[in-house]
Amino acid sequence: MIAKVGFIGVGAMGEPMAANLLRAGFAVQVMAHRNRAPVERLLAQGATEGETPRELGAHNDLVMVCISNDEAVRQVTLGKDGLVHAGHPGLIVVDASTISPLTSQEVAESLKEAGIHFLDAPISGGQGGAQAGTLSIMVGGPEDSYEQALPVLQAMGSSVTYIGANGSALVVKLSNNLIVGAMLTAISEGLTLAAKCGVEADVTQQVLSTATARSWILQERVPSSLLAGNLEPGFKLELMRKDMGLAQDLGHAAGVPMFLTALVHQLYTQAEGLGKGELDCFAISQLYTDATGVNLASGDQTQ
Amino acid sequence: MIAKVGFIGVGAMGEPMAANLLRAGFAVQVMAHRNRAPVERLLAQGATEGETPRELGAHNDLVMVCISNDEAVRQVTLGKDGLVHAGHPGLIVVDASTISPLTSQEVAESLKEAGIHFLDAPISGGQGGAQAGTLSIMVGGPEDSYEQALPVLQAMGSSVTYIGANGSALVVKLSNNLIVGAMLTAISEGLTLAAKCGVEADVTQQVLSTATARSWILQERVPSSLLAGNLEPGFKLELMRKDMGLAQDLGHAAGVPMFLTALVHQLYTQAEGLGKGELDCFAISQLYTDATGVNLASGDQTQ
Repeated sequence: MIAKVGFIGVGAMGEPMAANLLRAGFAVQVMAHRNRAPVERLLAQGATEGETPRELGAHNDLVMVCISNDEAVRQVTLGKDGLVHAGHPGLIVVDASTISPLTSQEVAESLKEAGIHFLDAPISGGQGGAQAGTLSIMVGGPEDSYEQALPVLQAMGSSVTYIGANGSALVVKLSNNLIVGAMLTAISEGLTLAAKCGVEADVTQQVLSTATARSWILQERVPSSLLAGNLEPGFKLELMRKDMGLAQDLGHAAGVPMFLTALVHQLYTQAEGLGKGELDCFAISQLYTDATGVNLASGDQTQ
Repeated sequence: MIAKVGFIGVGAMGEPMAANLLRAGFAVQVMAHRNRAPVERLLAQGATEGETPRELGAHNDLVMVCISNDEAVRQVTLGKDGLVHAGHPGLIVVDASTISPLTSQEVAESLKEAGIHFLDAPISGGQGGAQAGTLSIMVGGPEDSYEQALPVLQAMGSSVTYIGANGSALVVKLSNNLIVGAMLTAISEGLTLAAKCGVEADVTQQVLSTATARSWILQERVPSSLLAGNLEPGFKLELMRKDMGLAQDLGHAAGVPMFLTALVHQLYTQAEGLGKGELDCFAISQLYTDATGVNLASGDQTQ
């Protein structure tokens, strides 16, 4: 029965997730961070604070990790003051970061030698979902550890799905995101083509929402982003660039030709280099609109 | 008030569309064709037969055209025995073929000089939709001609949408199909990657159907095609290759960079060259599965 949860990475996603654990009655110990504001807010809600991953691993039943990249995950798990040194066999570590499935499998193997159980648990649903506790969480790793972790995951997400062995949830997450990255690009291409040929983007979007191209992105995301002229993230373009790179690397390692992912990764890399990394991932559309003088925002289409 | 309708092109789509016009009470004159079977079936349902487009144009209020490519449309409209020679000012010609918007605009201009009104009216919904009279029909051209043609279109489709000037409906159709062509490819890539990494395609499909990649294609088309190991068309791969080429050409003419369409067009061209043209357009997946030894059909995934 898990009662005490450590939390490493109380950023835009991690902070509301940790707050939901507190609300659900778990004792939460967050790791100290130079950025004091989210830590202080969680302390005010009843969390305690620890200095290192090792300390969090020693004092808790389960440690959540929610950070940004492969190297950071290696550091908090296997580094100098990492979880592997907690001296706590039976500890469960749940990694919600989107990293390479291959890195995740390596970390799982290394932690296993110290008797620590590792789960990859990538999340989707954005900051709104993290706040509402309605994240979709996919989980890979030993099934008995998954079952033990389930009450913790259910306090943060409304849909928790067990996929299979270590890394498998990250594989599915990257499969999702490579399809999304291609769809955002294809929709940008299609709406720009139509607009340049005289059909305003909102008309095309409406018609396509009843046609075979219809999708959650076209119907739910396009109106509030492209058609509204609003590229506030959402999901930052630099993160989509990162995920396309992870998918491409995974395909390379697995021997799968990644025709679309390779091209789309290049386009996101170009867009980030042009200074759009902090915008929403739909800013990929600007590669099309800047080159054509088209404006996709409703009622303001420039031929 | 339109009572007499000529019909050119009683193929897989045209025959059931003409049958629905007969059922709705229109007098239908079909054009003679070497392939006698569909003509005879329609004659048995009360249609009459004519020899040339010119004859159909002379004897009817409206002529439907439902054929395969730009050259064939030019031939029946502007050729030797074409509709332009019908001597029938006020005639409405409705072209349901998917051709270049630029060709469609040229044909519209040439017919206008003979007092003939031309509408582009590309359809979607497949053979099933044609039989059930539930096609989605987009229309471009003069709005008053559209309004006159509306009862005819409503006898064949359940959703009829006026888009704008001549060619504009084809622009929207190509925008739809380029997005679909990219989605089929991206989904094939994502499912193959996951399968090669050990997650069976039906599991990935189920999880992604609740995630941000969800779409009509992923949820409705993947189970009955890829997961069922069934590549009976549907929409033939050679037609998707044709539409990707039309979209690419349109982008070239309009000055729009077509990053994804260009690549996807090449992949469909390769697949057609490998003998997959008569299969469903989802046979694009074989470019991935043949190279990886993966089988996407449920319960039969080869690592």
